[in-house]
Amino acid sequence: MRIAITGANGFVGRAVTRALVGQGLRANLRLVDRAFDEGFGCETLVLDLAAPGAAAQVADGIDCLIHLAALPGAAAQADPALSRRVNLHASLDLLEHMRGRRVVYASSIAVFGSQFPAVIDDHTPAQPDSTYGAHKRMVELALADMVRQNEVLGLALRLPGIVARPQADGAFGSSFLSEMFHAAKAGMPCVVPVAPDATTWLMSARTCAYNLVYAALSSASSPDPVNLPAQHVRIGDLLAALASTGDVSGFSHVPNPSLERVFGTLPPLVATRAMELGFRSDGDLGALVEASLTDG
Amino acid sequence: MRIAITGANGFVGRAVTRALVGQGLRANLRLVDRAFDEGFGCETLVLDLAAPGAAAQVADGIDCLIHLAALPGAAAQADPALSRRVNLHASLDLLEHMRGRRVVYASSIAVFGSQFPAVIDDHTPAQPDSTYGAHKRMVELALADMVRQNEVLGLALRLPGIVARPQADGAFGSSFLSEMFHAAKAGMPCVVPVAPDATTWLMSARTCAYNLVYAALSSASSPDPVNLPAQHVRIGDLLAALASTGDVSGFSHVPNPSLERVFGTLPPLVATRAMELGFRSDGDLGALVEASLTDG
Repeated sequence: MRIAITGANGFVGRAVTRALVGQGLRANLRLVDRAFDEGFGCETLVLDLAAPGAAAQVADGIDCLIHLAALPGAAAQADPALSRRVNLHASLDLLEHMRGRRVVYASSIAVFGSQFPAVIDDHTPAQPDSTYGAHKRMVELALADMVRQNEVLGLALRLPGIVARPQADGAFGSSFLSEMFHAAKAGMPCVVPVAPDATTWLMSARTCAYNLVYAALSSASSPDPVNLPAQHVRIGDLLAALASTGDVSGFSHVPNPSLERVFGTLPPLVATRAMELGFRSDGDLGALVEASLTDG
Repeated sequence: MRIAITGANGFVGRAVTRALVGQGLRANLRLVDRAFDEGFGCETLVLDLAAPGAAAQVADGIDCLIHLAALPGAAAQADPALSRRVNLHASLDLLEHMRGRRVVYASSIAVFGSQFPAVIDDHTPAQPDSTYGAHKRMVELALADMVRQNEVLGLALRLPGIVARPQADGAFGSSFLSEMFHAAKAGMPCVVPVAPDATTWLMSARTCAYNLVYAALSSASSPDPVNLPAQHVRIGDLLAALASTGDVSGFSHVPNPSLERVFGTLPPLVATRAMELGFRSDGDLGALVEASLTDG
């Protein structure tokens, strides 16, 4: 089985590649990105997914596509036309070129918008209110229809905030969550833009990669997107967990209302379907912090 | 103000053109379709919206677009790739070319899928489960994001079953509803594929055209699609209303489970927002039948 990974040089992409290489699948991989820091000894394909003909090159001879590449949320909001090219049209092109084969699409909890119900579960409707969320939802709908029509097999997985992203990944509105890990590890000051009682959803890159690989190698196929079993984390509790292995003495809270609304008011998540399908959470906050500080 | 109407030669398109011409706007219209039976003395543009460059031609010099053209539901289900070209990509192209201007998009109650709650109101989430419904929902999401981003102004209106379509419009799964009107008028036999207790949503073409024109000429702009105030009709009651002006002695019921599920289980509709915005229903079943038999 040949597997292509788009966005393979990204933070999640490298974790996914590492996991697949660890399973002895190095020779089966085609890594796709605009540039590579590390090729892992795999076939690499350097291209811009929004360029004409890119989808055909990515999909050529491939049995399974793990589609991670995306313009992040804050960047998409600032340039919706670019988000349409990258997050929407390039993704739709890839689906079109993967007919008869398997697709794992990295969607996002951004599809839920920023007006959350008391609990999010498998029946909570997607109500995106950002450019990123709207385009992720549109691709979910396109994939769902192609799965119902037996044009492709596969799944959309909704990723929560993944930690700890490299410090350069500032195009994510949720970057502050990763910065907290880096600052605690380095004993540096950190201005946290949400209050201690803010709540968010987190997953370590390691667990996220496990789940994406699990979806790729399984035969699960469904029009219904899967809410990955993120950890529901209170920021004050995250600080306490970070303090146990790092130094948070330089941390302060200066809440930013718009960041807090989108990333700091997430309700409890009941991810029944994900757990039944065999997807994993980090288990608890301690394990999440440990995994994220080790890999990050 | 110059207004382009796509699908202008269709059943709804002709009703919209008639309404605008009736308001003295003949010289302001650009009618767009693949062919024309009647040009109404307006500028006509004959093209396939899925052809390269079509969107630019449609939008050139236009202040407001009424986008009606679509591959109907049954045809979209049978050929999802064609639906992607026509219902999805051609629509997205048109939005892209209408930047800074006004768009009225004819969406559909198909976005609600076929698993209905007890009542549908302004808060009912879209959960499409057909190709047509998925693509309509995707375009709603694209328009909503462009409205939020101030890239276009406008509204998506969700149309219910429109009666009485010409008998040739068999690409709609809901065609049987229109056939009932024609058969009653002509005193012909009619096999109704749903039971008398089946319930559906109907609107006359005249009222539908009123609403589309009202949206086009108003300044209303919102990312939230509008559920047009359709009439919630029990099929047995429709038969009785048709009997009062036509002949239904040759009617029989032979329920088709899949048609009944999609078109015969629609719950009551509470279209508060549409009414507040000034959109109209047909008023009552008698008025709907009268309008539909007169125009159809």
